[in-house]
Amino acid sequence: MSDTKTVRFGLLGCIRFASKFVRTVTESSNAVIIAISDPSLETAKTFATGNNLSPETVTIYGSYEELLNDANVDAVYLTMPVTQRARWAVTAAEKKKHVLVEKPPAQDATELEKIVEACEYNGVQFMDGTIWLHHQRTVKIRDTMFDSGLLGDVRHMYSTMTTPVPEQVLERLTKEAMGLAGAIGELGWYPIGAALWAMSYQMPISVRALPSSVSTNSVGTILSCTASLQFGSTATTTAIVHCSFLSQLSTDLAISGSKGSIQMNDYVIPYKEDKAWFEYTSGAKFVDMHIGWNVTPERVTVDCSGTPETQEAMMLREFTRLVEGIKRGDLEADRRWPDISKKTQLIVDAVKKSVDIGCEVVHL
Amino acid sequence: MSDTKTVRFGLLGCIRFASKFVRTVTESSNAVIIAISDPSLETAKTFATGNNLSPETVTIYGSYEELLNDANVDAVYLTMPVTQRARWAVTAAEKKKHVLVEKPPAQDATELEKIVEACEYNGVQFMDGTIWLHHQRTVKIRDTMFDSGLLGDVRHMYSTMTTPVPEQVLERLTKEAMGLAGAIGELGWYPIGAALWAMSYQMPISVRALPSSVSTNSVGTILSCTASLQFGSTATTTAIVHCSFLSQLSTDLAISGSKGSIQMNDYVIPYKEDKAWFEYTSGAKFVDMHIGWNVTPERVTVDCSGTPETQEAMMLREFTRLVEGIKRGDLEADRRWPDISKKTQLIVDAVKKSVDIGCEVVHL
Repeated sequence: MSDTKTVRFGLLGCIRFASKFVRTVTESSNAVIIAISDPSLETAKTFATGNNLSPETVTIYGSYEELLNDANVDAVYLTMPVTQRARWAVTAAEKKKHVLVEKPPAQDATELEKIVEACEYNGVQFMDGTIWLHHQRTVKIRDTMFDSGLLGDVRHMYSTMTTPVPEQVLERLTKEAMGLAGAIGELGWYPIGAALWAMSYQMPISVRALPSSVSTNSVGTILSCTASLQFGSTATTTAIVHCSFLSQLSTDLAISGSKGSIQMNDYVIPYKEDKAWFEYTSGAKFVDMHIGWNVTPERVTVDCSGTPETQEAMMLREFTRLVEGIKRGDLEADRRWPDISKKTQLIVDAVKKSVDIGCEVVHL
Repeated sequence: MSDTKTVRFGLLGCIRFASKFVRTVTESSNAVIIAISDPSLETAKTFATGNNLSPETVTIYGSYEELLNDANVDAVYLTMPVTQRARWAVTAAEKKKHVLVEKPPAQDATELEKIVEACEYNGVQFMDGTIWLHHQRTVKIRDTMFDSGLLGDVRHMYSTMTTPVPEQVLERLTKEAMGLAGAIGELGWYPIGAALWAMSYQMPISVRALPSSVSTNSVGTILSCTASLQFGSTATTTAIVHCSFLSQLSTDLAISGSKGSIQMNDYVIPYKEDKAWFEYTSGAKFVDMHIGWNVTPERVTVDCSGTPETQEAMMLREFTRLVEGIKRGDLEADRRWPDISKKTQLIVDAVKKSVDIGCEVVHL
């Protein structure tokens, strides 16, 4: 098989959530799932049936290793628990498979560095599954608010990812399941990534978990944390990031600039699949006598209906574009995506370290 | 004059912004402005002309002292710079005038305590001019989100008050004009008050200005600051408050609870005078496969049109209700309003202290 127009995917880990990836690939024009695997063959078989994956076109493996030895597989999507991702991502790269891995891609920056090095050494593309970065809304905000100058300089940011876990489940969030960084890796990955994105990937100079903002369960897994990131040497930009398993679902992103501000409350996963919006004001001030504002927030809506234009589809399109180019020999692996992952992971690690040392400042 | 149905106001300080108060009193059915004063008689006269205050019904004084000696004045509204408010508020109380003072009412808790003590001793009502607390939307949120249980326990809050000052003016923001706490008093008063309000006036256990979040001008006035407030002994509720003269206008209030969340971006002064809204979600979660939400934010709109129902009118109504009651002998001065002011001021002071000691934790 030398078809460079179709990327043949193998799935490592048949969790329920992987159905979303199957759906995205199935709807795409240049990717196909040819193999799935799970340490439990039974689980893999049930997943195949539940997701209409026919044994005639999809090979079902009872181990990741077997799938990675399948020479027909071009690329893999990894969904197993974060504690196992580094091991299997490195193995996949060594087997010359391109690597798309759920976020957080690793437990810490050391593990992630090993993955990225293995991918670079073996000439395969690495990307983590932070889908919102690929949404057309995200691109639109970059164009209309940042590049246009409408926002001005970023002064302050606030971002959250909170999702409630039932009380009886909180104790089951072990470090084996969640990784060492707990909620900071699993949830904080998003607001930390959002702050980095807003700062065009300039790294913060220091990070601090806020005193008393940290909750853990009885086995020490971090369940909730608020942290501040300081950007620049002149104390002008602060990002507040908040993650928690103890609050209702919230995915807020507020960016306050010298000229304008942006608000979204669904930046991670938009409320609706077929359209997404953000609100902004620019040049806002109180009217005379301070009895109102000169503007009300403008809503910008991005239409994602029609041909699949979901954020998952956009991510897959970018990943397959790179894989196809590498297969053809036209492209080298794009370092932008692993660089974003590494920067995000370094900040996750720094927040975790701040928690560990009693919420002291960690310099980066 | 023994009319208990009309509260006769005197104005201390004829700044442009005081026009708003004049308008509110003029539109009310039970209050009237009978005197105005300013250290500059010329300024007072110009203000009278500009605000259609006829010399036949309004006495114009060239000093605060003269106005306070006018036995016909029941109550005063103080708008002079914060550095002078304590002195004149105390004098007003001693002259048995009820005291409505712009926020922040004093430079620190010690000054405020003197004002409140003077008011209590002299049996007059004290209230600071934090108008949003009187808005019908504020009352509606209390009813529908807090008292109903729709929000659950407050887990996290984020609140801002930022308004840009032109670069050439920043240096003119001296401590004489702005008070010792600078932006923390002038702007931070709002987000700090919002956090207290959301916590039903439970005090935080500790406060901290965030390292490197503080900007000052060359004369040391604080221009920008972010702080965290920790509520409760078990590390479950954090409020982030942000104030700045360096960002575009923003007045955000986001409250994240165990069951729901609330968002407003105009809590201090609503976008429009005739209606105001807030958005909330409750019981929000991602739908299957995480391709959207089970809910979109609900918008609750409060109609403020018709008879004057602005937040200023509501504040005046509450203040005059109390003054009338005290004049009739039916009521004692209500300690709720000075208590709210004092708690807010204590936190302003604690944030200022944290800045002064290098952003260390200040326990309350």
